[in-house]
Amino acid sequence: MKRDLSVKEASDWIQGATPRLAAETVNLFDGLGQILAEGVVSPRDLPPSDCSAMDGFAVRASNLAGADSEQPVGLPVVFEVAAGGSAARPLADGESARIFTGAPVPAGADAVVRQEDTRSEGDTVWFSAPVVDGEHVRDAGEDMRAGEEVLSAGTRLGAAEIGVLASLGRSMVSVHRRPRVAILSGGDELVEVDGDVTGDRIVSSNSYSLVARCRELGAEPIYLGISKDDPQSVESQFRAALGADCIVSSAGVSVGDHDHVRPVLQKLGCELEFWGVKMKPGYPFAFGRFTAGGVVFGLPGNPVSAFVTFEEFVRPSLLKMMGAEQCFMPTLRARLGEPLTKKAGRLHFVRVRLVRDGQEWIATTTGNQSSGVMRSLVEADGLMIFPLEEEALQEGASVEVQVLRGHWFEGRQPPP
Amino acid sequence: MKRDLSVKEASDWIQGATPRLAAETVNLFDGLGQILAEGVVSPRDLPPSDCSAMDGFAVRASNLAGADSEQPVGLPVVFEVAAGGSAARPLADGESARIFTGAPVPAGADAVVRQEDTRSEGDTVWFSAPVVDGEHVRDAGEDMRAGEEVLSAGTRLGAAEIGVLASLGRSMVSVHRRPRVAILSGGDELVEVDGDVTGDRIVSSNSYSLVARCRELGAEPIYLGISKDDPQSVESQFRAALGADCIVSSAGVSVGDHDHVRPVLQKLGCELEFWGVKMKPGYPFAFGRFTAGGVVFGLPGNPVSAFVTFEEFVRPSLLKMMGAEQCFMPTLRARLGEPLTKKAGRLHFVRVRLVRDGQEWIATTTGNQSSGVMRSLVEADGLMIFPLEEEALQEGASVEVQVLRGHWFEGRQPPP
Repeated sequence: MKRDLSVKEASDWIQGATPRLAAETVNLFDGLGQILAEGVVSPRDLPPSDCSAMDGFAVRASNLAGADSEQPVGLPVVFEVAAGGSAARPLADGESARIFTGAPVPAGADAVVRQEDTRSEGDTVWFSAPVVDGEHVRDAGEDMRAGEEVLSAGTRLGAAEIGVLASLGRSMVSVHRRPRVAILSGGDELVEVDGDVTGDRIVSSNSYSLVARCRELGAEPIYLGISKDDPQSVESQFRAALGADCIVSSAGVSVGDHDHVRPVLQKLGCELEFWGVKMKPGYPFAFGRFTAGGVVFGLPGNPVSAFVTFEEFVRPSLLKMMGAEQCFMPTLRARLGEPLTKKAGRLHFVRVRLVRDGQEWIATTTGNQSSGVMRSLVEADGLMIFPLEEEALQEGASVEVQVLRGHWFEGRQPPP
Repeated sequence: MKRDLSVKEASDWIQGATPRLAAETVNLFDGLGQILAEGVVSPRDLPPSDCSAMDGFAVRASNLAGADSEQPVGLPVVFEVAAGGSAARPLADGESARIFTGAPVPAGADAVVRQEDTRSEGDTVWFSAPVVDGEHVRDAGEDMRAGEEVLSAGTRLGAAEIGVLASLGRSMVSVHRRPRVAILSGGDELVEVDGDVTGDRIVSSNSYSLVARCRELGAEPIYLGISKDDPQSVESQFRAALGADCIVSSAGVSVGDHDHVRPVLQKLGCELEFWGVKMKPGYPFAFGRFTAGGVVFGLPGNPVSAFVTFEEFVRPSLLKMMGAEQCFMPTLRARLGEPLTKKAGRLHFVRVRLVRDGQEWIATTTGNQSSGVMRSLVEADGLMIFPLEEEALQEGASVEVQVLRGHWFEGRQPPP
């Protein structure tokens, strides 16, 4: 077992050991948030033919060449084309057709004038301005061409992608399946959320946030409860987790005398590959692999350490299983709002708030950085990277910040 | 009915007309993504007493004052305190106790030395360095104090917040209920995803992306299918939608002859309050309210226009219903990668890709900005705001970009 890896060494090791999961075929809506395991090719042109982008009148642009408000041009409206319909015949020189958004532009017409820009009088429509050839006409195949790959394997299915797949008539889609994540915790001091917390017992809150985080990411959490600090209890819990794609055990894989996890893992065919990452919070982190497949993450018990090691190591591994190509935390550049110091030898992930100041982001710490202070996570917008060998950062230094949440910079104001 | 509002006027109008929905009490896990309708107060101190942050030995710091590697200090280990346990008696001067992470620090001790920094020999433990008073001790109430509000009303429940609620023993929680959103589309050219698309028929793809987007936001979509272009079909579809908190109709509320929506809405007790927003894409957007409650959004039929007006107007309204305090799109500042021109009089939302270049973001357009080109949405990271009265933006201009997705800037690299 290796000891004391850098964050990058640990990340690379884990990503190298993580398999992409097999593909499954799911219903379009069920695939939301999952990642395409196939490239998707358009079976036809979209739009299928030249069509109108507006409600208005189809014309030949040349017929309106001299039109202005003094001398409007009047054309007879000879037929109408509805969306989903088709033109009765080609449009002849000097004619116009009523046309609706999405309707095919009749042969012989080359432009559409918006209804708002015309005036109707019986069967005649009056135009008071010329129109450019092609105006308000969407060309056949403008959006997608038959035979063209429009979504590549590795694309995450969000709302826009679901819309594209629907437009191609794809109601079933091949995606990497969601990882099943067994979540375990252990410790005689821990109780469930409905348990008795008199004395020094505390709720196993890590389990709850880990279950929630898996759901947010689109993985399938299986919560296996709290084991006691004895080998039988730990073993039966891990046995229940066998077959999961990933086991996340909070607390338990430490150097403490009360650690019964390592021998149990060995007995069950799991080799611990490394222990200890040069980071804070989160140093006592362990990673292992079952010979039968499946990876094991041993997270520290402190809530903040558990959360940070999950984000740094478990999340990228789950995203890779799900088929993602970019698995690491999003980052941005910020200016540090206060001076910070630490000892060299560990990379610190400093919980910070981010506030926009014109073109820049200002990062300020959430205060007490103790790894027990769970509230600091609620207040944090990001994790500032205080590099391994650095000992001091000045106020105003340019720092890299991992962004914790998609919604952290929700706006207060609409656009002007 | 008002006409031709600016984006800000339309946004303010809609937000003013949107109610926050009532609270409901849900199970902790079910509340993920919902927004607290109550402030949550801690019923006790957390941690409940001074406790150890490490596996190691509890000591009096004064006993190790002179310790170094040449002259280590040895102390007898007189008892052990496990997490969830308690000390048999106070620690006396010159004694130490074995202690585990989370265990209460015995009276008489004031610091914890990590196991890795000690050497054990029978019942004696040797320390080769002094320790600071309070080292590795978490003070009672350090995380949360009894009676203190730890989460305020309006907080969105993510994984960290779920962990905090669990730690307080809260398995049920009061949140604003999820809005029920009826999604309607209409047009004789539209078919469902499994329908026959020969000729100029197309799939009602807007419906699918709107359903997906509602799910992503935590709202409850109710998809009511496609109505025909006749008053009876439109009316029966809207009747099915009555009682929803929000109706989103894609296409249908336009100036076209085939528009049967406005009279139907009036008949059902809905007043259209405004039509037309000075923006592109998305000009033919309508908003109305039922006298019985419930808001109606009439989106343009073009996929891009529908998507953009949903993001600009429907999303903030749904977030307000759900209890959010910041409802608008997140924005960042970017440098424009190419020159752009337009006519004054409409605000343009330009689909752009965002690429980080050191400290800056570079925004480049996704190409064809036709409102029919759905693929441009798949490729877009954000919507660049090209202000109402501006006619030209130079390459290199500083521009405001609304960020479309939480995951758009997923990282390729782990931290160093």
